[in-house]
Amino acid sequence: MKLHFAPTSPYVRKCMVVADELGLSDRITLLASSAHPVTRDASIIANNPLGKVPTLITDDGVALYDSRVICEYLNDLGGGHFFPAHGAARWHALTLQSLGDGILDAALLARYETMVRPEALRWADWTAGKLDAIRTSLTHLEHHPDVLDGAMHIGHIAVACSLLYLDFRFPDLNWRQHYPTLARTIEPTLARESLKKERAVA
Amino acid sequence: MKLHFAPTSPYVRKCMVVADELGLSDRITLLASSAHPVTRDASIIANNPLGKVPTLITDDGVALYDSRVICEYLNDLGGGHFFPAHGAARWHALTLQSLGDGILDAALLARYETMVRPEALRWADWTAGKLDAIRTSLTHLEHHPDVLDGAMHIGHIAVACSLLYLDFRFPDLNWRQHYPTLARTIEPTLARESLKKERAVA
Repeated sequence: MKLHFAPTSPYVRKCMVVADELGLSDRITLLASSAHPVTRDASIIANNPLGKVPTLITDDGVALYDSRVICEYLNDLGGGHFFPAHGAARWHALTLQSLGDGILDAALLARYETMVRPEALRWADWTAGKLDAIRTSLTHLEHHPDVLDGAMHIGHIAVACSLLYLDFRFPDLNWRQHYPTLARTIEPTLARESLKKERAVA
Repeated sequence: MKLHFAPTSPYVRKCMVVADELGLSDRITLLASSAHPVTRDASIIANNPLGKVPTLITDDGVALYDSRVICEYLNDLGGGHFFPAHGAARWHALTLQSLGDGILDAALLARYETMVRPEALRWADWTAGKLDAIRTSLTHLEHHPDVLDGAMHIGHIAVACSLLYLDFRFPDLNWRQHYPTLARTIEPTLARESLKKERAVA
């Protein structure tokens, strides 16, 4: 398999965590890319017209995206249990994944606003709206730690990847200090080798 | 069930199309909301800390989001076949859904940039990047009409909802004229009652 990859993409990280957990990483060749919200990468577009990472090319030459599809595919390929097959457990895991991905979407838009957009064109209300979405989401997780109960599934992985992205790009949010219950609850996930690993194109 | 609803949200439309197709619409009470990328709606946040529509509250009182999770849940509840259960058909349908959703993401960001953001703070390169993502995606569908082969699944529904959103908010793109093969290929989906229906909170 091949994966259009960017070392700092939290959505790529989600996929690689699932791959690592299931012993599939060695079967994935990482393809360097320069995905960017404004300057688009033609090499990705050839496989995914949206021009985004992660995009996976399977051994059969089929392009799969986005991270949710790739993670479920890898889970299936590796016989994993990160996507409960049916019932309440499935909807819970998938909704928690949506929450983690939603935190990431907000964080990425806030980052683009404050780092990519020319300074004179930045809109403080936009950034404030995105940071508030992060805040209400972390507050929810702080007050409902039970949503993180049970064996690790894609919901834990998505939330953990979103928190590591906040560590990386928004250290001033200091989420561990402001959401101590969340910090304790997610710690077993963050402590896994798959989450701690730094990755780069070989 | 209850659904946090906005009449112009294309992601809400996706969910309601699936509900209609499976005869579930009458079981869903639509909740008026004022989801907005900057001014957030506290009534949604109480059920979904991201503050986004669609958010579904099941008859068991469980909140599900986002549209992908809700659509798969409704498909399961109604015994539908819009989500192939496994194998290549599943990954194909889910990736096509990602493409439709990705077109929508780009279109919504372009719309926020040109209609919500104060005029003095607009960045033409940002809008151009989003419109280019729409263009490369529609070009892909134009050149690979076979990706829309077969019985209607969630991929067709997502692509159809994205095209109807372009009709609604970006009529100048004139996608039917520029992508005639796509227009012909998606026509059977667009012709379904579920796609044509206008919806409003009762």
